[in-house]
Amino acid sequence: MIKYPTGQGNNRSSNKSKPVFGRRGMSLEKMINLSNKYYLNLEIAVVHKKPTPIQIVKVDYPNRSHAKITEAYFRQPSTTDYNGVYQGYYLDFEAKETTRINYLPLDNFHQHQVQHMANCIKQRGICFVIVSFLKLNRFFFLPAATVVKYWDQQKYNGRKSIPLKIFEEKGFEFQPNSIPLIPYIKYVNFVIKNKR
Amino acid sequence: MIKYPTGQGNNRSSNKSKPVFGRRGMSLEKMINLSNKYYLNLEIAVVHKKPTPIQIVKVDYPNRSHAKITEAYFRQPSTTDYNGVYQGYYLDFEAKETTRINYLPLDNFHQHQVQHMANCIKQRGICFVIVSFLKLNRFFFLPAATVVKYWDQQKYNGRKSIPLKIFEEKGFEFQPNSIPLIPYIKYVNFVIKNKR
Repeated sequence: MIKYPTGQGNNRSSNKSKPVFGRRGMSLEKMINLSNKYYLNLEIAVVHKKPTPIQIVKVDYPNRSHAKITEAYFRQPSTTDYNGVYQGYYLDFEAKETTRINYLPLDNFHQHQVQHMANCIKQRGICFVIVSFLKLNRFFFLPAATVVKYWDQQKYNGRKSIPLKIFEEKGFEFQPNSIPLIPYIKYVNFVIKNKR
Repeated sequence: MIKYPTGQGNNRSSNKSKPVFGRRGMSLEKMINLSNKYYLNLEIAVVHKKPTPIQIVKVDYPNRSHAKITEAYFRQPSTTDYNGVYQGYYLDFEAKETTRINYLPLDNFHQHQVQHMANCIKQRGICFVIVSFLKLNRFFFLPAATVVKYWDQQKYNGRKSIPLKIFEEKGFEFQPNSIPLIPYIKYVNFVIKNKR
């Protein structure tokens, strides 16, 4: 099992000398949650996954201290899944896995999510997506402006996906083989430097 | 019914000439959600309430497209309820209503929430609480540093609340009688100016 630093010991240097190979079937969400925990424990950034939005219909109270939800439904998220703060900067991102080989279908996103990304970009948030091409075992950090651009263009050019070569051109590629597995802060730093 | 600008019409100036009096039994949460919507529609800030965290135990699939949650429980939130971005700044806050007259009991917060506030402050996020003293009909914007300070001090001095006079000294008082009802961006601007 991978040991994540708690911020108490000095696991950081020992992790450096023992790179972790392979993701062992871990989902992208799991890898990001572990990376968020790493950044949090080392006081590098404060980023959390938002809870899944649920429409609660019925709640039972078998006893006073314990409410039991007996009828509820999943709602469509109106924002992205992750956000937080890094050195005063607002971070906002979404993670997607695809089995497609050379493109990411735009139907991985909802209208509300893309609108949210566009809103955050306007407010000068640092907004991006992390995409895992499962069959290629390739991972990308892509600034969300590209997602918004392809989303907006689809009604004019009919293109319903973002080509892999755009990830190669506009994004940053990485492998989850060291700690943190999804080193997004590294690429956030690139974005900040280019911006300012 | 209060009409909130949609960003499409020019309701802004007409609202200015017709101030809204009284909250008419509206909860603080409701007032904040409407204020978030106002700021979002006018492209002033992007702030959302996080969904309530739920532990899902059982899900039925009566048909393929519709999942029905039949057993779930409320989980304790590990962060504050609201966060978002304003002109590049990370905003993070919690809202509390109290029926107490001259203090806010600290047990309105969880350990995790206060830890989260402290973490966000360290990352230079703009972190605060909005508190409604129901019986006084008084509303305050209070920077979260004061909450963290009182939380940390309670184990030394035994004081388990934040006195009203601290809100008067360290916070900003307002009345929800114009649009937006909870004008937190106004006080965020004060915080930014004092900071930089």
